[in-house]
Amino acid sequence: MTAGDRAAERRAHLIGAVLDLIDGGGIPAVSMRAVATAAGVSLAQVQYYFRSKDQLIVEAFRHICRDVEGRAAAVGFDGPARSVLRALIDLWLPVDERLSRDARVWLAFSAEATTRPSLMSFAAEVDEELREAFAQILRRASGSGELNPAADPVMAAAGLLAVIDGLVVQSLVLDESERAGFLSPRVEAHLDLLFPKAQRKPKRSKGT
Amino acid sequence: MTAGDRAAERRAHLIGAVLDLIDGGGIPAVSMRAVATAAGVSLAQVQYYFRSKDQLIVEAFRHICRDVEGRAAAVGFDGPARSVLRALIDLWLPVDERLSRDARVWLAFSAEATTRPSLMSFAAEVDEELREAFAQILRRASGSGELNPAADPVMAAAGLLAVIDGLVVQSLVLDESERAGFLSPRVEAHLDLLFPKAQRKPKRSKGT
Repeated sequence: MTAGDRAAERRAHLIGAVLDLIDGGGIPAVSMRAVATAAGVSLAQVQYYFRSKDQLIVEAFRHICRDVEGRAAAVGFDGPARSVLRALIDLWLPVDERLSRDARVWLAFSAEATTRPSLMSFAAEVDEELREAFAQILRRASGSGELNPAADPVMAAAGLLAVIDGLVVQSLVLDESERAGFLSPRVEAHLDLLFPKAQRKPKRSKGT
Repeated sequence: MTAGDRAAERRAHLIGAVLDLIDGGGIPAVSMRAVATAAGVSLAQVQYYFRSKDQLIVEAFRHICRDVEGRAAAVGFDGPARSVLRALIDLWLPVDERLSRDARVWLAFSAEATTRPSLMSFAAEVDEELREAFAQILRRASGSGELNPAADPVMAAAGLLAVIDGLVVQSLVLDESERAGFLSPRVEAHLDLLFPKAQRKPKRSKGT
């Protein structure tokens, strides 16, 4: 293990502690000292890797983004646009403990970003990247005739990201056991509007 | 002024202080003591009207909900569904300072509600009421042939609330000056999907 590997491992360990703290008590639970305690290291160690509470929060959110990106890379982008989008959306819906934690961290970060300029631009950038990724898929779907001809790919991409974000916000105040039942039909209903001709899965089997 | 009026006035004054605190520093900025200081009253006065920080936060959010409800009551519900919905949505989009404050308070409340069971049920109730209000309008629009026949009123209501919530989350990390330009065309694009036959305003004049 090189010195670089060790440093990366230590940073990852600290970020893990930040995620647990946010998940338990929101952004207010995060401080340099609380992270040191939660991670079982000295305050100086935390200060060595991160300069401020803001940086800890940004890095925690960035970690979640990278994690979703990593899983997104495993999604085959070659199938029908509707299936590709549904597979990408499923990486994000808070239907299990891990995804719920990530969604709570995202929401806490989004709320915090509205009053902290240092977080705001990063949040806006991530949104813009996601809209652009969706727009790329929807432009292709528009070219192939899959997309509702009344929909403009750029506007539809923004609408799709908004639907997902909004449904996630609303599902997080429901019981975890109710979330899949709340989210899935509403995501499908929105995709029905975007892809009026595409068939849903044959006989609506439960497989992907 | 009766004793009841005076009590209502004092509660309103304290709620105003809570809203200012949340707007400035999010939920962490709220405490019984901070509210007393911001409102220029004693801690005992705050404790007389509110039993806990959670109650302060719930009441602040309830205040905003009532405020939006009050303005919604002034919207004529008799016109075409699309125009009625657009007028209702416009009560909520964060395009000026006051609406931005309300939206930030909503987002802070939503994030906080995911980790506090005492807030969660109230947040879920408010969402459910909004979805039901939209569904009522959309059922009528379905009956009159205004609604896209591919859309189910209940699912479309959930989708519409999600689009609004998601766009609000995303717009709050943009500069206030960019928000109207971001929000309005994306709201219209979603309404285009729900009401494919309805004409937008004639010649797209800027008037309502």
